[in-house]
Amino acid sequence: MAGAEWKSLEECLEKHLPLPDLQEVKRVLYGKELRSLDLPREAFEAASREDFELQGYAFEAAEEQLRRPRIVHVGLVQNRTPLPADAPVAEQVSALHRRIKAIVEVAAMCGVNIICFQEAWTMPFAFCTREKLPWTEFAESAEDGPTTRFCQKLAKNHDMVVVSPILERDSEHGDVLWNTAVVISNSGAVLGKTRKNHIPRVGDFNESTYYMEGNLGHPVFQTQFGRISVNICYGRHHPLNWLMYSINGAEIIFNPSATIGALSESLWPIEARNAAIANHCFTCAINRVGTVNVFLCSFKAHQDFGYFYGSSYVAAPDGSRTPGLSRSQDGLLVAKLDLNLCQQVNDVWNFKMTGRYEMYARELAEAVKPNYRPTIVKE
Amino acid sequence: MAGAEWKSLEECLEKHLPLPDLQEVKRVLYGKELRSLDLPREAFEAASREDFELQGYAFEAAEEQLRRPRIVHVGLVQNRTPLPADAPVAEQVSALHRRIKAIVEVAAMCGVNIICFQEAWTMPFAFCTREKLPWTEFAESAEDGPTTRFCQKLAKNHDMVVVSPILERDSEHGDVLWNTAVVISNSGAVLGKTRKNHIPRVGDFNESTYYMEGNLGHPVFQTQFGRISVNICYGRHHPLNWLMYSINGAEIIFNPSATIGALSESLWPIEARNAAIANHCFTCAINRVGTVNVFLCSFKAHQDFGYFYGSSYVAAPDGSRTPGLSRSQDGLLVAKLDLNLCQQVNDVWNFKMTGRYEMYARELAEAVKPNYRPTIVKE
Repeated sequence: MAGAEWKSLEECLEKHLPLPDLQEVKRVLYGKELRSLDLPREAFEAASREDFELQGYAFEAAEEQLRRPRIVHVGLVQNRTPLPADAPVAEQVSALHRRIKAIVEVAAMCGVNIICFQEAWTMPFAFCTREKLPWTEFAESAEDGPTTRFCQKLAKNHDMVVVSPILERDSEHGDVLWNTAVVISNSGAVLGKTRKNHIPRVGDFNESTYYMEGNLGHPVFQTQFGRISVNICYGRHHPLNWLMYSINGAEIIFNPSATIGALSESLWPIEARNAAIANHCFTCAINRVGTVNVFLCSFKAHQDFGYFYGSSYVAAPDGSRTPGLSRSQDGLLVAKLDLNLCQQVNDVWNFKMTGRYEMYARELAEAVKPNYRPTIVKE
Repeated sequence: MAGAEWKSLEECLEKHLPLPDLQEVKRVLYGKELRSLDLPREAFEAASREDFELQGYAFEAAEEQLRRPRIVHVGLVQNRTPLPADAPVAEQVSALHRRIKAIVEVAAMCGVNIICFQEAWTMPFAFCTREKLPWTEFAESAEDGPTTRFCQKLAKNHDMVVVSPILERDSEHGDVLWNTAVVISNSGAVLGKTRKNHIPRVGDFNESTYYMEGNLGHPVFQTQFGRISVNICYGRHHPLNWLMYSINGAEIIFNPSATIGALSESLWPIEARNAAIANHCFTCAINRVGTVNVFLCSFKAHQDFGYFYGSSYVAAPDGSRTPGLSRSQDGLLVAKLDLNLCQQVNDVWNFKMTGRYEMYARELAEAVKPNYRPTIVKE
């Protein structure tokens, strides 16, 4: 299996396939081909100077008579942790703040209206260690922690909605930790927060060592640029999680994630894209890059644990999608969406209209009973 | 956009990519590479003589100490309608019976235990016409129609479970039509039937002109070779439909379909595969090949309606999948499954354990109420 040096599926296909075949392959794999966005030259220059990848694509919708296009530019950020995991906590957080500030400035040049960072972006993804200190020191208040205040400044300065997934310390409820995304309005106000609804217990990643299943349901945030939700990481494996955000009205669902290696890389292009199709909405799948460098610290069990393979992408309700960002390099993916596409596709495919949710609510309520007898037909 | 002459994504990639890159592309696109099945030479000879494609792959599972491998060979059949749609009904049905008999004989040579035909396999897929005669004459009793009797013979002769999706006439309940799959045990007995739960109203295919949403819930059929369900066609777009079959215990879910052209081809590799991942089960996606040749008859609206793009495939709970059959040729895809993989992947990923179905049953029950207020957070 290729390491992180194999840059991306798309680069490989572009390099080897003759143009007519490349077009067919892209059509089957990605749906209709997207137009590249004409981003400003100074944005590319800044990205190059700061050593991160910048890509931009446009999803288009049909013109309507009564609604104008509802254009929004989203930004997806993937990055490695700049300092080693055994650097002092405060220095690691500062370095990440500086890194993200530089990327957000480029996003602003590109006209991004809503930006989302990766899961638990202010820290190494240390939840495989089972250790507490120093990792729990990265937790902050969602409402007024230093990272939220930092993001409020970014949001206000750049007139940009900021989705900031952090490790939250909830001092109002027994000082417990949560895996939380804070949503900050472009006004700079904290619009609210949402929590990871499904917690993995997979291999070394039993994150319930640190935090439990979210208790905030499936909130949708009405921003100036459209209705958004955040389905954090492992929640992408649960179709019902996507569905409830969609039923509550989300037009864009962000999926900030941290996922590694052989186990999940072939699932990655499938799940968020299927959710966009099934729910007539846009989905934004964000993964980290880099290795799990917490192993520089005391957790020595698996020195070769693997690497986060990046490959962040945006999928549309019609099943089309952008190429992925690099598997190994920091990056900013800008996508121009016309949110009118959601309702247009809904009206064609009608999954909500034909969904029979009343039947499923009944069946599910039965199925969870301890004495449920599944419908099995035998000879 | 390529017509049916562009054979398949896989053929194109194999032709152009250097081997190391091809392996990486396959890993990212398809998960772990599957072993080709060593099918008997006479099976290939017969397939070649009868002019259909034959492919075979094996999905493997880890060895366990207490359970032996639970091996089952499934067969997926895709085919065009051999006679034009304006041939007499009885002749069309006979020609299809003959065609399927020949393919099933090859499946038997390959050791297939469970075979599934395409949706409404005894007829042209005429539901875009809105006409009644002659199409409604293709409807039969699920319990003792000529096609069920034909399949019972096949099942008994070849010790094979047969999944036979037909247009059903239900004479016990007002002579209404249903889109139904009949499941016939390898003993030759009719094990039961299941109906299409979600009915499309998409473009020309408003199939509710002919039949309504199924009323048989989500039955699972316990066969000698494993527990199976049938999610017919448009039901593949509904994650809850797959989920309920899985909750009832299905280890293999067949998805006999009839889907065409630009609208759905980029969705096709995503949805059934996502369902295999999300539900820790195998899924078998079957599509027709050929054009909608009902236009030879009176329905002249769209002579260039498009073609069924075949591309039938099997996906496994670990996200791996077979290549697709051809986009244009009749074919039989044989897959050797070890059903132990379902529980093994379930124990790794734990989606059922972490699914929070009680919460979703409650949320869905609320969401369907006419006075439901979605959870929307505003500034």
